[in-house]
Amino acid sequence: MSATPSLPEVLQQIQTEAHALFGRGKVASYIPALAQVAPRQFGMAVALVDGTTHAVGDAQTPFSLQSITKLFAFVLALKMVGDEVWNRVGREPSGAAFNSMVQLETEKGIPRNPFINAGALVITDILTTRYAHLDIALLGALRRLTDDPDLKWNTHIARSERDTAHRNMSMAYFMKSYGNFVNPPELVLDNYCRQCAIEMSCAQLAQATMFLANDGLDIGKDARPGEQFLSPEAARRVNALLLTCGAYDAAGDFAYRIGLPVKTGVGGGIVAIAPGRGTVSVWAPELDAKGSSVLGAFALERLVQLTGWNHT
Amino acid sequence: MSATPSLPEVLQQIQTEAHALFGRGKVASYIPALAQVAPRQFGMAVALVDGTTHAVGDAQTPFSLQSITKLFAFVLALKMVGDEVWNRVGREPSGAAFNSMVQLETEKGIPRNPFINAGALVITDILTTRYAHLDIALLGALRRLTDDPDLKWNTHIARSERDTAHRNMSMAYFMKSYGNFVNPPELVLDNYCRQCAIEMSCAQLAQATMFLANDGLDIGKDARPGEQFLSPEAARRVNALLLTCGAYDAAGDFAYRIGLPVKTGVGGGIVAIAPGRGTVSVWAPELDAKGSSVLGAFALERLVQLTGWNHT
Amino acid sequence: MSATPSLPEVLQQIQTEAHALFGRGKVASYIPALAQVAPRQFGMAVALVDGTTHAVGDAQTPFSLQSITKLFAFVLALKMVGDEVWNRVGREPSGAAFNSMVQLETEKGIPRNPFINAGALVITDILTTRYAHLDIALLGALRRLTDDPDLKWNTHIARSERDTAHRNMSMAYFMKSYGNFVNPPELVLDNYCRQCAIEMSCAQLAQATMFLANDGLDIGKDARPGEQFLSPEAARRVNALLLTCGAYDAAGDFAYRIGLPVKTGVGGGIVAIAPGRGTVSVWAPELDAKGSSVLGAFALERLVQLTGWNHT
Amino acid sequence: MSATPSLPEVLQQIQTEAHALFGRGKVASYIPALAQVAPRQFGMAVALVDGTTHAVGDAQTPFSLQSITKLFAFVLALKMVGDEVWNRVGREPSGAAFNSMVQLETEKGIPRNPFINAGALVITDILTTRYAHLDIALLGALRRLTDDPDLKWNTHIARSERDTAHRNMSMAYFMKSYGNFVNPPELVLDNYCRQCAIEMSCAQLAQATMFLANDGLDIGKDARPGEQFLSPEAARRVNALLLTCGAYDAAGDFAYRIGLPVKTGVGGGIVAIAPGRGTVSVWAPELDAKGSSVLGAFALERLVQLTGWNHT
Repeated sequence: MSATPSLPEVLQQIQTEAHALFGRGKVASYIPALAQVAPRQFGMAVALVDGTTHAVGDAQTPFSLQSITKLFAFVLALKMVGDEVWNRVGREPSGAAFNSMVQLETEKGIPRNPFINAGALVITDILTTRYAHLDIALLGALRRLTDDPDLKWNTHIARSERDTAHRNMSMAYFMKSYGNFVNPPELVLDNYCRQCAIEMSCAQLAQATMFLANDGLDIGKDARPGEQFLSPEAARRVNALLLTCGAYDAAGDFAYRIGLPVKTGVGGGIVAIAPGRGTVSVWAPELDAKGSSVLGAFALERLVQLTGWNHT
Repeated sequence: MSATPSLPEVLQQIQTEAHALFGRGKVASYIPALAQVAPRQFGMAVALVDGTTHAVGDAQTPFSLQSITKLFAFVLALKMVGDEVWNRVGREPSGAAFNSMVQLETEKGIPRNPFINAGALVITDILTTRYAHLDIALLGALRRLTDDPDLKWNTHIARSERDTAHRNMSMAYFMKSYGNFVNPPELVLDNYCRQCAIEMSCAQLAQATMFLANDGLDIGKDARPGEQFLSPEAARRVNALLLTCGAYDAAGDFAYRIGLPVKTGVGGGIVAIAPGRGTVSVWAPELDAKGSSVLGAFALERLVQLTGWNHT
Repeated sequence: MSATPSLPEVLQQIQTEAHALFGRGKVASYIPALAQVAPRQFGMAVALVDGTTHAVGDAQTPFSLQSITKLFAFVLALKMVGDEVWNRVGREPSGAAFNSMVQLETEKGIPRNPFINAGALVITDILTTRYAHLDIALLGALRRLTDDPDLKWNTHIARSERDTAHRNMSMAYFMKSYGNFVNPPELVLDNYCRQCAIEMSCAQLAQATMFLANDGLDIGKDARPGEQFLSPEAARRVNALLLTCGAYDAAGDFAYRIGLPVKTGVGGGIVAIAPGRGTVSVWAPELDAKGSSVLGAFALERLVQLTGWNHT
Repeated sequence: MSATPSLPEVLQQIQTEAHALFGRGKVASYIPALAQVAPRQFGMAVALVDGTTHAVGDAQTPFSLQSITKLFAFVLALKMVGDEVWNRVGREPSGAAFNSMVQLETEKGIPRNPFINAGALVITDILTTRYAHLDIALLGALRRLTDDPDLKWNTHIARSERDTAHRNMSMAYFMKSYGNFVNPPELVLDNYCRQCAIEMSCAQLAQATMFLANDGLDIGKDARPGEQFLSPEAARRVNALLLTCGAYDAAGDFAYRIGLPVKTGVGGGIVAIAPGRGTVSVWAPELDAKGSSVLGAFALERLVQLTGWNHT
């Protein structure tokens, strides 16, 4: 690609353009506690494989990761049970809304992929079987990846989600009726809602996903030199999965417009992986009709236009 | 990635391993004329951006492109009408079999993407509106891309497909009932069946798709130096579409295992794009349950393992 | 039930009440020629098994029978091929809109029942196989049942329907792809659209269906004494089918409110059978959201309330 | 109809014929406790509006009513909240299996009718809101209708159903997510499973439903002369609902073959209403693929053939 401006300049320009879009989306309202987040916020952080980080706007403000945690939970399950995970969940794009039951019935209780709600519940069920305190185990992994011992979930949001988790409960019981759920749905939902309520800033999120841009290499402070968090091939595969399934039923559109593996969350966060280059994390709470951050998707699209990171 | 063996060695090894899989799939039977193809054939060709080509096995034998032509028809439509194409077809993975009506009803006659049958029919409808003799126009473009003036469709197969095209006729009329079909279905189906029956060898197919590996650059003999067949951004976008939608309801699995943009056809061909590196074309008529070539998918998976081409 | 007023009084009262509902529905617009019918018309006719007939309003005005002809076509097919008809069409309520493709795909090309469009097309296909001129054969049967040698179809409406029959063409080809369609869809659709365009008045329709109220007895002028148009058991079964499937996805509501076998048409006609008592035909072109005559359904509901005909 | 043999003769003949069908079906296995019922049992009872009762075979053996209780629960809800019940449940045939989620999603949490599982759960939810001890209230009503103060549910079966009620739990939570469920699903399911496990004999069941054959008249010992259990119009409507929705996705076939309002249960019981004549109850545990008693459906079909009760 042609020569690009410096990364700080790029981020500054994107922030200016993005601010013009305030008001185009709506803060998630299905969880009462989330609906109270101030809408006009925007943060963005880029972490490069050379170890440097660049940030702009509200990049240090913690926000609710929500579905972005599905990525971390899946990676943990993959590390733990390996390819066995595919006995209980598929790896095809769903082509349907994130919480559709129709597909689940057609496919006899096997969710399409680990990033739709049903699939994420199966992943949490797998983790629940192994860890007495799953929430703490997941938090532990994330604390290590971010080097932040104070990382935690928002108990208020976790409780709010749990109180309104009827549809997720329905899906859990549905999969149980097909024999694809091991633990009591109530227990798994407790874990799942705490998991979704974990909070990070853009800067932390960019760091926490760096192993995916770096052939699986662990860059945490506690890692030994050359230690792999995931094997290079596993990291590539997780990225492939993010590319085809990371944005619910907008995955094709994200691939077309942005062309990088991403994971979105209704908290307004999006993380994108540029393999061999770095990671990009963006947060802005106003969502479009499909549940993705309006400013976030715009910012990523502009970033790849200005940097050519989606070209080889 | 680690050092790789030479490409001719890699291809030789893959051929040896692939032959061991003969008998694992079934030749397409839904079109009588296709069912007569001898099953135990295997060819593979790799074209590199440096202009060199490497081939093994039956790489010079012409085979029926079938759905692989959807890629070329889509590129032609994109060149012709640009983003208007998205008014009539989506760009999301379908998550359903290639000829499903259910999704088409749910989405009111707008097919999910240009690579499922319904979407390909819309594309052919768009081209039919512009070209009095679409089949000849498409053939003209392919002759130029392959530098082969004798490229043609198999009239026997075209007629065989047309005689059994009831489901495609049904989809065309269905879209017409929603106002998403302009020309008479009979006429579009005539064109569509001829299009599907175009024949190429692996070597030709690798060459014909080279613009997608090469930022859209036209490398045909008749092209002026630096002439673009597609813009770099359009080429990237087509590749993104192939990655998420190029293998029907096995797209996620292909992305996971192979990680390159691909297009499959029930003739047993698969073409894969390695942006910045080259193209890979493979042909073996025996298909798996989802309609992809068994040996073809295996060969691509081995190729990326042995070359690391799916890593950055 | 309690004593009822005289039938002429009942009909007079119903007409008065029904007129107050003018404007509550909309004339069918999906066929251009039908959309031109004057909306504020209302006719009703009751034929009793004792041979007397009572009518009110526009009961002598011919109207387009539309789906009501599905009843006659089915009876003809049943007389012709008997229980073999059930090899090609089911007899369960569809629980879906009259032209749904989803169900047809789920059930592999076997329509739910003979009164949804797909099922009616199969019936017309069966008749087309037997009769060189199906339209004339069906017309012949109806002329005999009504004793009206001038009964005909409206060529203008038939052509208008044929020109816009994309969805029905789609369903015919769809069933053909499953092997459940024998004749060319174009030919069957020609017959089907003429069939739908047959016109009758309320008085004629009440007479033409009298065999269903009369244990199958043929009461036409040309019938020999005691001649059966259908066996008593077949007549009962047709009535059962009308009760569960005669009003598309409002069948349950009609059974609940009215409790008699009925067949509706988008021309605004409804015919109801009161076994052992007589038949009721009503016509008013304004339709509700499900395609049933607003005044027609009201008039039938009032009739059974005032006469107790839906009680034993 | 023609003269019929005496009712005792008819029942004797049917029993003889029915015994020949032993072995054609399978005892319900989805609830462990139900699977232990001895398969080769057959009982039948006919109660006439003149107060006489005729029975044959195992007509005094209590069996598990299962879905037949949906009829009684619905009648109770209708008596209690009247037409308000239709705000929460439809009255159309479902055209799908009894426990389908697809339809429930399409229709946004409003079940198709009160006799599919989802609809019955809504009815039990309505009753749960009114009665502190719903199970006891329902049992009270049934004790009065049968004049049997010892009527009860089988605690072993109730517990067995509750332990495996994952799919019903899923549906309850699903409706709750649409706002169509008031009480905690766990509590409603407790009530629902006890309700399903109520046991009666054929003779009792025929008596308990007599009000539906008798224009709603209460014939219990404790009723005052002329006291109505339901109004005549409400009784007719319940019968209409049973005719269109009482046999799951075999409702059309039951109407066609038998032509009377029925309610089936996976315990092997079926009750049929012959308005103005009487009620028929039959029990034989072996079920067909759609969950209806093989011998039971046969016995009802023969009864109407031999008595003409499905003709006017």
